[in-house]
Amino acid sequence: DAKTPDAWVQRHPSLIRLTGKHPFNVEAPPAEIYDYGFISPVNLHIVRNHGAVPKLDWDTHRIEISGNVPNPYSIGMDELTQMPSDCFPCLVVCAGNRRKEQNMIKKSIGFNWGPAAVGNTYWKGVPLRIILNRAGIYKPGPGRRFVCLAGPEGELPKSYDGQDGGPGSYGTSIDMETALDPTCDVIVAYEQNGDRLHPDHGYPCRVLIPGYIGGRMIKFLCKIIVTDEESKNFYHFNDNRVLPVGVDAEKATAEGWWFKPEYIINNLNINGAIIHPQHEETLHAPMKKYTIKGYAYSGGGRKVIRAEVSFDQGQSWKLANINVREKPRWAAGSSGDKAKHWCWCHWEIEVDADEIRGANEICFRAFD
Amino acid sequence: DAKTPDAWVQRHPSLIRLTGKHPFNVEAPPAEIYDYGFISPVNLHIVRNHGAVPKLDWDTHRIEISGNVPNPYSIGMDELTQMPSDCFPCLVVCAGNRRKEQNMIKKSIGFNWGPAAVGNTYWKGVPLRIILNRAGIYKPGPGRRFVCLAGPEGELPKSYDGQDGGPGSYGTSIDMETALDPTCDVIVAYEQNGDRLHPDHGYPCRVLIPGYIGGRMIKFLCKIIVTDEESKNFYHFNDNRVLPVGVDAEKATAEGWWFKPEYIINNLNINGAIIHPQHEETLHAPMKKYTIKGYAYSGGGRKVIRAEVSFDQGQSWKLANINVREKPRWAAGSSGDKAKHWCWCHWEIEVDADEIRGANEICFRAFD
Repeated sequence: DAKTPDAWVQRHPSLIRLTGKHPFNVEAPPAEIYDYGFISPVNLHIVRNHGAVPKLDWDTHRIEISGNVPNPYSIGMDELTQMPSDCFPCLVVCAGNRRKEQNMIKKSIGFNWGPAAVGNTYWKGVPLRIILNRAGIYKPGPGRRFVCLAGPEGELPKSYDGQDGGPGSYGTSIDMETALDPTCDVIVAYEQNGDRLHPDHGYPCRVLIPGYIGGRMIKFLCKIIVTDEESKNFYHFNDNRVLPVGVDAEKATAEGWWFKPEYIINNLNINGAIIHPQHEETLHAPMKKYTIKGYAYSGGGRKVIRAEVSFDQGQSWKLANINVREKPRWAAGSSGDKAKHWCWCHWEIEVDADEIRGANEICFRAFD
Repeated sequence: DAKTPDAWVQRHPSLIRLTGKHPFNVEAPPAEIYDYGFISPVNLHIVRNHGAVPKLDWDTHRIEISGNVPNPYSIGMDELTQMPSDCFPCLVVCAGNRRKEQNMIKKSIGFNWGPAAVGNTYWKGVPLRIILNRAGIYKPGPGRRFVCLAGPEGELPKSYDGQDGGPGSYGTSIDMETALDPTCDVIVAYEQNGDRLHPDHGYPCRVLIPGYIGGRMIKFLCKIIVTDEESKNFYHFNDNRVLPVGVDAEKATAEGWWFKPEYIINNLNINGAIIHPQHEETLHAPMKKYTIKGYAYSGGGRKVIRAEVSFDQGQSWKLANINVREKPRWAAGSSGDKAKHWCWCHWEIEVDADEIRGANEICFRAFD
């Protein structure tokens, strides 16, 4: 990164760059991050940057809480870390995880993420509801339906006019009920795996919205604005949408499809991948048994309950063993629908090596 | 029904019987119930009975609230109707809706429901959380993780031993968090579309669990039991499960698959159907335009956001117009993920009649 504005940021050499040198958009080699197990190392965690990493200072950074609130205030980092906090593991996934395969079927406007646009780490931070409570907000209502979140002005190379950050900031919004619901676990995070955040992951603080796509988890958080309308930020509307087949970017812009609320992506869908065998892996002749391994996750707190592989294009399926390592959040006294899962699970199945040798392809599917 | 134990129950003549004369398991002709629109008539609403309809008396019927509660009590119907109540429209769907088509691909152990194993009506009743509060239960905890629900003893022809109803009752359980969560809208219902319940729909009272499969919504409710373990009722375990491919009923019984919590069905999946054109409908020659119509729903409060049809086996899709008639529940101040939808939506799309004439089949899909 020597000749980029990110020259000062330390990065892991094995990360795979997906958009050239700059901005920095990377994932780890799938087997490398997978083989660390349930908790991922921070330096192999997906990074999705829209511009240069802002150089922010812990001592001077402030978050402003404003908009339609009785008690607007701003808060510095030292004070933030004195507030009640929570710490738990949570998967962060780019909405475009595995988009490379999608793009092979039909080109989308997003770039080619492989299957490692993920990271499962511990996050520590202050619940957003506590920050809102201090501003006098205890429940949603007219004029208080959304919480807009924005990074620093000037983060992005061009102007993205909007109510919630002004020119050149990256922003989005979430609805007030989600922001206030303790079982949604939305936090303003200042630690990842026990350390202060890495610049690529939002130093000094970012929003974490468990179960949501990464694109809504604003990094370098500067502004929290209570409003009656969704964020007007360019990226809130023009990115992270799934539009019907036949509506391409041009048509979407001409006909206003970006602004239709139905097509927003918030909670993740179920997804997963086979990690072992890797692409072009060779099975050595004497091998009798092989353990196929992969991961799966879902959104909205839903638990992955089943993972299966097929060697015959889906004619028959073999049930893999799922290893759900996390204790579900909000499961107190319950084993039911309110128990929430924010992490990936790893699955594996041992098969005869000959079954793999005889198969044209291995298919995988999961259920939540 | 002259020679069955149900001879005394009045029923609509056009209902389609799916399991012979008795017990009574029926759905309406799809177009007939559909064409009534958003709210279905009670007498065309799906009925799923496991035995004869119990003859219960409003004046003497009582619900017992017991198990691990500080204040066990029982309550009669007149007293129940004096408690705080709620009234809202909610879709009730058999988990097996459209199973006929599934059975054509691979036979399941369920019988052949068509696409009208549904009904969308107003339900009025007392929130289960208020009933539990009166017994001294305000939150889940050790010993209080589940609420078992059971109908009358002797409802079913043979013995189904279990903790929550004894011999011959139909029972299930839900987790305490769902039971206590106001946004889950679980009620003990005593009115449907403004009348007392019809005997086929649970007179004098039944449980309504919005977004869940119908099989958990116990009719003729007699017992509410707070426990630390799931219901041990035969039907709670041996029905309403989706097991992996390759696990048939015999294997499931031999290997204990019925008791694995992962495979329970509670919240509905997304589903829907094309209602117009009907099977074997003839398009008359001069017709230029045709409006294809159908419905879609999801579970867990999720909103259906997209419905599409294809005339070329899914190569291309046309976007239909969705008519979401309900005001979402729990949407106060929010247009986001906390807004809950308990009803079906109807969708339609006008196409050139020639497109239908040229198509081998019409496919439909929906998204939530």
